Amino acid sequence: MSSTYGENIKVTVFGQSHSPAIGVTVEGLPAGTAVDFEKLQAFLARRSPGRNEFSTARKEADEPEFLSGIVGNTTCGTPLTAVIRNTDTRSKDYSELKRIPRPGHADLTAEIKYRGFQDHAGGGHFSGRLTAPLCIAGGIVLQILEKEGIHVTARIVSVGGIRDDAAFDGKLQDPDFPTAGAEAAEKMKECIAAAKAEGDSVGGVIECVITGLPAGLGDPMFGGMENRIAAIVFGIPAIKGVEFGEGFQSAGLKGSENNDQYIIENGEIKTQTNHCGGILGGITNGMPLVFRAAVKPTPSVAKEQESVDLLEKKEKTLQIKGRHDPCIVPRAVPVIEAAAAIAVYDAILGRKKEF
Amino acid sequence: MSSTYGENIKVTVFGQSHSPAIGVTVEGLPAGTAVDFEKLQAFLARRSPGRNEFSTARKEADEPEFLSGIVGNTTCGTPLTAVIRNTDTRSKDYSELKRIPRPGHADLTAEIKYRGFQDHAGGGHFSGRLTAPLCIAGGIVLQILEKEGIHVTARIVSVGGIRDDAAFDGKLQDPDFPTAGAEAAEKMKECIAAAKAEGDSVGGVIECVITGLPAGLGDPMFGGMENRIAAIVFGIPAIKGVEFGEGFQSAGLKGSENNDQYIIENGEIKTQTNHCGGILGGITNGMPLVFRAAVKPTPSVAKEQESVDLLEKKEKTLQIKGRHDPCIVPRAVPVIEAAAAIAVYDAILGRKKEF
Amino acid sequence: MSSTYGENIKVTVFGQSHSPAIGVTVEGLPAGTAVDFEKLQAFLARRSPGRNEFSTARKEADEPEFLSGIVGNTTCGTPLTAVIRNTDTRSKDYSELKRIPRPGHADLTAEIKYRGFQDHAGGGHFSGRLTAPLCIAGGIVLQILEKEGIHVTARIVSVGGIRDDAAFDGKLQDPDFPTAGAEAAEKMKECIAAAKAEGDSVGGVIECVITGLPAGLGDPMFGGMENRIAAIVFGIPAIKGVEFGEGFQSAGLKGSENNDQYIIENGEIKTQTNHCGGILGGITNGMPLVFRAAVKPTPSVAKEQESVDLLEKKEKTLQIKGRHDPCIVPRAVPVIEAAAAIAVYDAILGRKKEF
Amino acid sequence: MSSTYGENIKVTVFGQSHSPAIGVTVEGLPAGTAVDFEKLQAFLARRSPGRNEFSTARKEADEPEFLSGIVGNTTCGTPLTAVIRNTDTRSKDYSELKRIPRPGHADLTAEIKYRGFQDHAGGGHFSGRLTAPLCIAGGIVLQILEKEGIHVTARIVSVGGIRDDAAFDGKLQDPDFPTAGAEAAEKMKECIAAAKAEGDSVGGVIECVITGLPAGLGDPMFGGMENRIAAIVFGIPAIKGVEFGEGFQSAGLKGSENNDQYIIENGEIKTQTNHCGGILGGITNGMPLVFRAAVKPTPSVAKEQESVDLLEKKEKTLQIKGRHDPCIVPRAVPVIEAAAAIAVYDAILGRKKEF
Repeated sequence: MSSTYGENIKVTVFGQSHSPAIGVTVEGLPAGTAVDFEKLQAFLARRSPGRNEFSTARKEADEPEFLSGIVGNTTCGTPLTAVIRNTDTRSKDYSELKRIPRPGHADLTAEIKYRGFQDHAGGGHFSGRLTAPLCIAGGIVLQILEKEGIHVTARIVSVGGIRDDAAFDGKLQDPDFPTAGAEAAEKMKECIAAAKAEGDSVGGVIECVITGLPAGLGDPMFGGMENRIAAIVFGIPAIKGVEFGEGFQSAGLKGSENNDQYIIENGEIKTQTNHCGGILGGITNGMPLVFRAAVKPTPSVAKEQESVDLLEKKEKTLQIKGRHDPCIVPRAVPVIEAAAAIAVYDAILGRKKEF
Repeated sequence: MSSTYGENIKVTVFGQSHSPAIGVTVEGLPAGTAVDFEKLQAFLARRSPGRNEFSTARKEADEPEFLSGIVGNTTCGTPLTAVIRNTDTRSKDYSELKRIPRPGHADLTAEIKYRGFQDHAGGGHFSGRLTAPLCIAGGIVLQILEKEGIHVTARIVSVGGIRDDAAFDGKLQDPDFPTAGAEAAEKMKECIAAAKAEGDSVGGVIECVITGLPAGLGDPMFGGMENRIAAIVFGIPAIKGVEFGEGFQSAGLKGSENNDQYIIENGEIKTQTNHCGGILGGITNGMPLVFRAAVKPTPSVAKEQESVDLLEKKEKTLQIKGRHDPCIVPRAVPVIEAAAAIAVYDAILGRKKEF
Repeated sequence: MSSTYGENIKVTVFGQSHSPAIGVTVEGLPAGTAVDFEKLQAFLARRSPGRNEFSTARKEADEPEFLSGIVGNTTCGTPLTAVIRNTDTRSKDYSELKRIPRPGHADLTAEIKYRGFQDHAGGGHFSGRLTAPLCIAGGIVLQILEKEGIHVTARIVSVGGIRDDAAFDGKLQDPDFPTAGAEAAEKMKECIAAAKAEGDSVGGVIECVITGLPAGLGDPMFGGMENRIAAIVFGIPAIKGVEFGEGFQSAGLKGSENNDQYIIENGEIKTQTNHCGGILGGITNGMPLVFRAAVKPTPSVAKEQESVDLLEKKEKTLQIKGRHDPCIVPRAVPVIEAAAAIAVYDAILGRKKEF
Repeated sequence: MSSTYGENIKVTVFGQSHSPAIGVTVEGLPAGTAVDFEKLQAFLARRSPGRNEFSTARKEADEPEFLSGIVGNTTCGTPLTAVIRNTDTRSKDYSELKRIPRPGHADLTAEIKYRGFQDHAGGGHFSGRLTAPLCIAGGIVLQILEKEGIHVTARIVSVGGIRDDAAFDGKLQDPDFPTAGAEAAEKMKECIAAAKAEGDSVGGVIECVITGLPAGLGDPMFGGMENRIAAIVFGIPAIKGVEFGEGFQSAGLKGSENNDQYIIENGEIKTQTNHCGGILGGITNGMPLVFRAAVKPTPSVAKEQESVDLLEKKEKTLQIKGRHDPCIVPRAVPVIEAAAAIAVYDAILGRKKEF
């Protein structure tokens, strides 16, 4: 089903941008999992709008209410549901969308798929706002993983074509604009500011590194870690590419260059390099799992664009108004972490218990 | 489950490189589907080894036997199972693998996951040979799609870093080495020959174009066409990246550049460009669906490599012998088509029948 | 997953008896389905407590709030979530349950499964109250089916051993105590009143008849209509048996007696009898689909019972206080209809759309 | 999907009565599971035809060939596929079935569902012969369970209305006609012989007892042990009812009679009685899991029956020829065990591994 992810935990995301609420149901969280709500709120805040000059002015607290699955601050083993009320809804901003689809958005494809019955206000179920409930689920899962020494860290590696080539040593310059290097971050911010000034937008690439994973995680064929991660990450709006390890770069290498040769280090088998991104045959090898996701530039730009009037069946120039991010890459970073955490934890729970 | 793909048709691949047989079970094929076995055999031949100087010398007819699901040449509606006997097995070639894992292969990760019980001969269930049963299923599905005017065409767009920049007009130069341009193909072949001479290997990138798809196909979030296609394509051995439309390139564009503006052409809504690869919000927009997959270089290289002896727990130099492709990209082209066809058809069957 | 049912629509039930809310998420409802909320409320009222002298005094309006999936009064195609607030919670009534499990309830099995972390208040996720959200989903589906001429009608056929042998002609005596015959209903009510007076409870059998189904619905083996219906109906608390057509009676018949012979009636193929309950090989034959479900007597009885103190690990006499139905059979009737409707509609949506 | 069962192991049954082969694919068997093939063959023999005077004269060795998933005699962790060749096929016996459907069989419903494309020979995929591959999967799982002290024992409790009221102490009178009491078995056999002499058939009831299960197995709602077992057992041809513990009898009891009161026995919590069949709230309580399945009489009777000629659209008298069992109940006993074992093992594998 399209709005549900997972085999061993199931995460179902519901809601539309302007429906009474958005939310998430998580089945399969082990009973007795303590949730640190303050920490969760801090995680959600990283995704929230209004953090800096580049994000939409729409302000919402994004404070989840837990309707079920929690007793005190602990999971009780049955489905957990949390909702966030949509309070700051301005439906009038979106009245034209139903008639004149925005280029690069799902307006037209939703119109065709749902034969006009879709909730078009604010992009409906296709809105980036739906990543908030994904982050509730992912934020809880991240807490579980961290207790086991599994760390999921995403960061910006390029924005608008500006690459951060600084080596990543696990430390990020700025939690609200997480990069390995400080210099590139400044240039990226300038690039975003310039795009904003033009009424335009830019995209970028996010890299995610997962350390502490046990070797032997994942399954062959369609159950590989690549498949599992891609299957959730492509569910984040604006993601148009996912690659692991060297990814597309590996296609230009020779086998002797791309293979990661084995060594023994402190009695443990490691690889000298990590071109495979910690995955061979779909299964983790104990090295850091590394993947990158390409984020297309936000399609909501203030510049005039060509569209069509669906009612009159003729071409029509469109100018999008309202509150939009010139670059969603910084806010997408925690969403990538949430998605990766869910995929990894689902694979972990898929390991079979011995008798 | 890891070796099963699909919600509406289910494709289960079974077998190991040197088990008595490999095969596939397909559930959900509509009854009354005529199968052109000759055409299917021709499709399987494109994946078969021994087609040219670049592929392994292992020769197998790869002729499937249909055990169930077919009456005469027509599907009967219940599960279709086809098997290919493994005849030309040379288990002795692989005796060392269990002890000294090959870099870049799944030998070590399988050893850890299955605690030594895996079938290591010839890579077992992780062998590229398992793409043959996937091609049986995909080959039948391709026939169904073609009758409906849906065409799935993959081609090589780069090998060993050599790119084919010729525009693709639907015509391929050579079915056994499918490229848009003839010139690049020659250079790619030289590159492969050079790698072979060095005992090395090269990878490449395959682009797949699907035309004739209805608009409105796919679902939001985790049921998007990107998710569905990535979830099967990453199941093909050696794939390390998947991108749609402009993919990673789009991350460097501005919104105004990357958005595909709408026009009306012969009364139908089209887009001027196709940067989104025919997918918006996970749902097709009626333009060609375009994706690319990165194929890493074959890890089986004749050059000496560093590995470890799992029994003695010490480092050990390894030289791989046996029959290996210096470049599997040409043989992977029909596999990509098979996988894409299955993903697309599964989405098509997911559309709900009206009463 | 345990709290989710369905392949083509997915119904996920969440909540606990005393959590902030209970609710349901339904994925896969076709866009453009109008919901008659008044009719839905009337359906929910049939399940609500406090309708007559036999049901618990706990009074809750059971008015769902629709958080997503609805625009105006019409489905928009993306997940529908509805919640019912738990307002009249009296947690103190249940303080002892965690320590001294009630015989016949899930108290002890939940304690073991969730290692003490379960929400024990009011039975938690195991409470009969969780059938309310199932009825929200089922009530909407019933409206869809009715528009297509498919009618799902359940009725009481026995209570406390008293059978209603009146032939069912589609008419029910009393919507709040639905039986075919009026006489048996009176005796059943007396039986319930007597049990109540004794501080005891009684069970019963509910029969469900579905008319208007197309022939050819359902799938072989594990996708049969029997499997599908049983898989949801056993999810209703207190159901301990499900049978189709003659069911257990057929085991005592001869083949020549039990077979339903074919006739032609008004140009259509019918069967003379309907011992098979409208299902052969798991697939509907166009005759009414008939099944029965056995409802065990409510385990909450006021009489003293033997239990154990889990803390002190010794036997302990228990007397259950609080508000309990002496017979839940009348309130279970709409729940059976809801469950049957969901199972049938899921099978209907599973039929593949032609190109 | 209809021919696949399970969440944690997946059992896919394929084949038709007269296709080249029938078989099963099992995904999710842990690597390193030793299979005792001799014991498995003995188990399959219990289901085989030709064991006694009551079963069809069709003789087939039913010796599976293992195509994948096994190395030596041990599972390797990837999908196991086993096939049985259909050798003794007599397609001519069945030529009329396509035109004149047999009452009580799936002939007509398959014709409608598959629009005439079904494999009608010998009942196709609906044939009882398809329980042989289910028994391959179940037979392996039974071996796994037995090593863990979990025993699955089914027996005949009634045939043609004749009940065996002897108490079951774990011992069976005759493995080929398993009952608790010897006396009833004789009467049942006479009853079958009488039916056979008349060209008729009889059904019966099978009870299955599973001992050694851990408490806490199964999940609430639709993941209950009742749901899981019913969902597979109704996939066995001819099953028309499934009940747990007292089942339909419990509907006539009072709560105080039906509740199983708790006691402490040797320091462990037990119940005085086992009316609930070892399941409360869908979850095992550590007492034996008990269920019964109603087997309808074989629909293939030699007596003349009324049917219709589908081609001429008129009523037609039919006399079925060929080889048929007057009572399939004895052969269904191991099939029930196989199905129950798979359901139970799937639930066991669903318990999550701690980190």
